[in-house]
Amino acid sequence: MNSIHERLKKIKSESFKSLTITPAEKNEALSKISHALSDNKEFIFAENQKDLLAATKASIPTPVLKRLLLDESKLNDLLKGISDLIAMEEPCFKTTLKRELDKNLILERVTCPIGLIGVIFEARPDALVQITSLCIKTANYVILKGGSEAKYTNKALHKIISDALSDTALSENFVTLLENRDEIKELLTCHDCIDLLIPRGSNEFVQYLMENTKIPVMGHADGICHVYVDEFADIKKAIQIIKDSKTQYVAACNTVETVLIHESIAAKILPDLNNALKSAAVKILGCPETEKYLKCEKATEDDFKTEYLDYIVSIKVIKNIDEAISHINKYGSHHTDAIITENDSNAKKFMLQTDSAGVYRNCSTRFADGYRYGFGAEVGISTGKLHARGPVGLDGLLTYKYFLNGNGQIVDDYASGKSSFNFKNL
Amino acid sequence: MNSIHERLKKIKSESFKSLTITPAEKNEALSKISHALSDNKEFIFAENQKDLLAATKASIPTPVLKRLLLDESKLNDLLKGISDLIAMEEPCFKTTLKRELDKNLILERVTCPIGLIGVIFEARPDALVQITSLCIKTANYVILKGGSEAKYTNKALHKIISDALSDTALSENFVTLLENRDEIKELLTCHDCIDLLIPRGSNEFVQYLMENTKIPVMGHADGICHVYVDEFADIKKAIQIIKDSKTQYVAACNTVETVLIHESIAAKILPDLNNALKSAAVKILGCPETEKYLKCEKATEDDFKTEYLDYIVSIKVIKNIDEAISHINKYGSHHTDAIITENDSNAKKFMLQTDSAGVYRNCSTRFADGYRYGFGAEVGISTGKLHARGPVGLDGLLTYKYFLNGNGQIVDDYASGKSSFNFKNL
Repeated sequence: MNSIHERLKKIKSESFKSLTITPAEKNEALSKISHALSDNKEFIFAENQKDLLAATKASIPTPVLKRLLLDESKLNDLLKGISDLIAMEEPCFKTTLKRELDKNLILERVTCPIGLIGVIFEARPDALVQITSLCIKTANYVILKGGSEAKYTNKALHKIISDALSDTALSENFVTLLENRDEIKELLTCHDCIDLLIPRGSNEFVQYLMENTKIPVMGHADGICHVYVDEFADIKKAIQIIKDSKTQYVAACNTVETVLIHESIAAKILPDLNNALKSAAVKILGCPETEKYLKCEKATEDDFKTEYLDYIVSIKVIKNIDEAISHINKYGSHHTDAIITENDSNAKKFMLQTDSAGVYRNCSTRFADGYRYGFGAEVGISTGKLHARGPVGLDGLLTYKYFLNGNGQIVDDYASGKSSFNFKNL
Repeated sequence: MNSIHERLKKIKSESFKSLTITPAEKNEALSKISHALSDNKEFIFAENQKDLLAATKASIPTPVLKRLLLDESKLNDLLKGISDLIAMEEPCFKTTLKRELDKNLILERVTCPIGLIGVIFEARPDALVQITSLCIKTANYVILKGGSEAKYTNKALHKIISDALSDTALSENFVTLLENRDEIKELLTCHDCIDLLIPRGSNEFVQYLMENTKIPVMGHADGICHVYVDEFADIKKAIQIIKDSKTQYVAACNTVETVLIHESIAAKILPDLNNALKSAAVKILGCPETEKYLKCEKATEDDFKTEYLDYIVSIKVIKNIDEAISHINKYGSHHTDAIITENDSNAKKFMLQTDSAGVYRNCSTRFADGYRYGFGAEVGISTGKLHARGPVGLDGLLTYKYFLNGNGQIVDDYASGKSSFNFKNL
């Protein structure tokens, strides 16, 4: 037996005790963490400078540096996030079904923590604080592995959080930080301890994890989002929504990669759309029909399967709404897809038949985000269909269990006909 | 490309159209299936006789023969199940969250089918009808593979159901039956088509599936259930509950395998429990402490990890409730575990800290069953913690998606501060 596995087994067996922690104790822990972060902010910023210096020396690209930076403004956002979380309704042990099966035999379905959650995240130290806070509010023990570029900042944040927890009803083992990249391999073998793995990172990395562990993985590998401009679209809305969906933040998973245009509206929209996208420095790849209306490179079959994460968009003219839905269900990643239409029945058809976590009408795909949905924060976005789908907030970190309270009842009495069930929802 | 994969790809791409099927159309299909089964019952019974004859010739054990039998009484139960399902509230497209993000920007979370579900089930032809009915009510396309011992019956049932569907809004492809065992291997590679696999069968078989497919698997491999007799137990209740949990049907997954006894009550309960179990032909394996009060073989560490599915029970005397909870969380299978106690605070602690789908107080573990929970029918029992837990009825066959209805809103207006979110639950 190796050391991380042994550590996790100990943490796992301890974790069941957290299930009797009260809502007030959890909120108190969050509050202490918030104060400790605030009191130690100069130390955090200093450690963060070490990471930034090393990253600058290693010529790490500017967008990564921006994510790596943890300054006063980002810290204030984090503290605001924690105080929002404290104010939120207690999510655990909420009864979602209560049914009398027979006299004095009461079934309840009750929300509860999942257990021990592993989170592997990119070089964004603020993610450490957000994820930890969500796990505390849901009473899930958490194992964190952050990007090595943020190692000094992560270590500082983890120390501050652990010290703050030592003075609360929560165990110091509640939040564990793994510091070496090679520990991930060992983590992946611990399916007897870890109940759920949440990776945030590149497609390749998430795929690698999914293929190399028996732990259930919640996350998304790809974000290939679509905007479909229906024959009944308002052209002005369509153009501004496509521009926002593409350019508001090109590196996000909820950015549009393919625009589908109904053939009867192509001549009316394509020249203006071309101007709008070109003025925002977006390169267009088009199908042969698109090329009739604007100058562009050819979009290949592969383009429709590509998440560009860049100022590139592919455009395809299609015959009807059915072709749009088929295209999205075939090439998309079941993330977020939008229809632009003023026609209610087309909107309904698109929203029901498109097999995605988010189906939008007349608004930007960039709204797919836990904060924008009012979830406070998110641990990630799931493109899987099971358990949690779309932006994952507190709900996705919970499961449920059934309580059955009786008074000596046995099944044989019901099997023999001596007793019979009288189901009554309470 | 091989033939089953090609067939499934076609079915999958067609399946999205089912999402606009109405509740009335689904209920009409269920009603037509019910009539067709009733009208063709002599044919079903005759085909079932062929299976029974072959099974008898092959000296298949009596319990399997009993499961294989499909007679008038079992058919009536099935027809009753279908009529219950028709009467149940429509489960799809129920709004579970409705929130105004800003003026004219409305978010809704709505239940919806998972998509294409693969079910592999043992030699119980009635399971084919139950599972198909649940999938129709939830609008999930389904691929069925039944036990080969029931091949004539399954083929007959599938033909009757397909013929009935041909006269409805549902496609004939809605329910597909695979007939050869070697088709399972191919099925397991179709993770691009099948959204969820539900196996019912032996532990080894479920484990084999989980290790050989990328399709999410929902089910249970083991059923190691416990009854813990607390120091504050009512002894009479404890004995009748343990006897029922062990003997009411020994081959079920919700049968008790280990009984834990608080040391302070051991002397009072063990002699009577011994008599009760011996009179029901149950063999006892006990820990050294148990042996002080009754004659039995020694229970080994392995016994506590064993699902006997037989008239055998292991008994362990433990020091306190914490040891009981630790034992169950370590050796159990997170299925169903009961405490016998008259003490509310011990009951609460046990029910919160025991990490199982079902945690019971003062009643038999045999109640863990979809029918007994009032779910109408079940597709199986899940010991996983994600998506669905415990007996899985209609709810476990659904996922959800987010609808966002706007009026041209773009994210840049919110990022720039021109607009701001005003979350309001509707």
